[in-house]
Amino acid sequence: MKTVIYGAACSLDGFIAGLDDGVDWLKWSDEVAALSAETFAAVDTVVMGRRTYEVALRLGTRSYPGVRNIVFSKTLAPDQHEEVEVIADDAVSVVREMRQEAGPGICVMGGGRLAASLLAADLIDEIGVNVHPVLLGKGIPFLAHVTRRIDLERIACRPLQHGCVYAYYRVIRSD
Amino acid sequence: MKTVIYGAACSLDGFIAGLDDGVDWLKWSDEVAALSAETFAAVDTVVMGRRTYEVALRLGTRSYPGVRNIVFSKTLAPDQHEEVEVIADDAVSVVREMRQEAGPGICVMGGGRLAASLLAADLIDEIGVNVHPVLLGKGIPFLAHVTRRIDLERIACRPLQHGCVYAYYRVIRSD
Repeated sequence: MKTVIYGAACSLDGFIAGLDDGVDWLKWSDEVAALSAETFAAVDTVVMGRRTYEVALRLGTRSYPGVRNIVFSKTLAPDQHEEVEVIADDAVSVVREMRQEAGPGICVMGGGRLAASLLAADLIDEIGVNVHPVLLGKGIPFLAHVTRRIDLERIACRPLQHGCVYAYYRVIRSD
Repeated sequence: MKTVIYGAACSLDGFIAGLDDGVDWLKWSDEVAALSAETFAAVDTVVMGRRTYEVALRLGTRSYPGVRNIVFSKTLAPDQHEEVEVIADDAVSVVREMRQEAGPGICVMGGGRLAASLLAADLIDEIGVNVHPVLLGKGIPFLAHVTRRIDLERIACRPLQHGCVYAYYRVIRSD
């Protein structure tokens, strides 16, 4: 079974992007590069929602190398986005099926709504956050519409450069 | 001038209480006791909103010893809550005035709305969070309605018992 990892950078008040999907507060560092490399070494698939994909495009990332890139969208035209697989089917069903396969993990790049729907369906195994030293007040929540209490086990926690705080959790399942 | 500190325990998704003000996920520990003692040694006043006060009452805390206890409320009857000072005046004006005084700091115990209105008025100097390993999905936000982007400087960050993550910040002022 594949491990499904939701990784995100967020503000201290829990937004992964400000209004208008703004991410000008994001801090890149060697440590973040190393953490990303670590994650990419453990997964063979990256899944994301349409808005997250569009933010990545705007930042110059057309796709992530060395992995299968899946964008869930009912509106994007697949033939105009050939660097990724645009899938119009229900994300929860697709991820549920992929998770049953053997092999490296699946990284959920965002957004918060996709991650929350996967969490609600009990399909997220691990959550990594890089909390940035900023309050945004408004924007896209790290996790929108979590529908039940979910307990976590902290696996890692450490300060990163630029005043960031990294924490990594495993989802505790009651079954 | 007094330092105004907002300290709160919250879930990873940023709630200081679940629906119905539920805080059964809160973990107490020797480390949290030490951090609280450190804060109380640095302040002479505790301010809170009415709901936070009622949660504290329910948990058996009628007031915090050794400090001035202020509850901002237009509805509570002062003569029924003699362990605290019930102040019906505008919290922002009262804290602005108190902050100008010399002496030990002021601790904002919550809730998120009071803290946010003080932040909006540029009256919060430091923010401490104890992030608990749980997602609640709904509840009272750590900071509700922050009205502008506020940059922070991380002063401390470390893991605590029970999977908690402690982080402490100073508000960066542009002036």
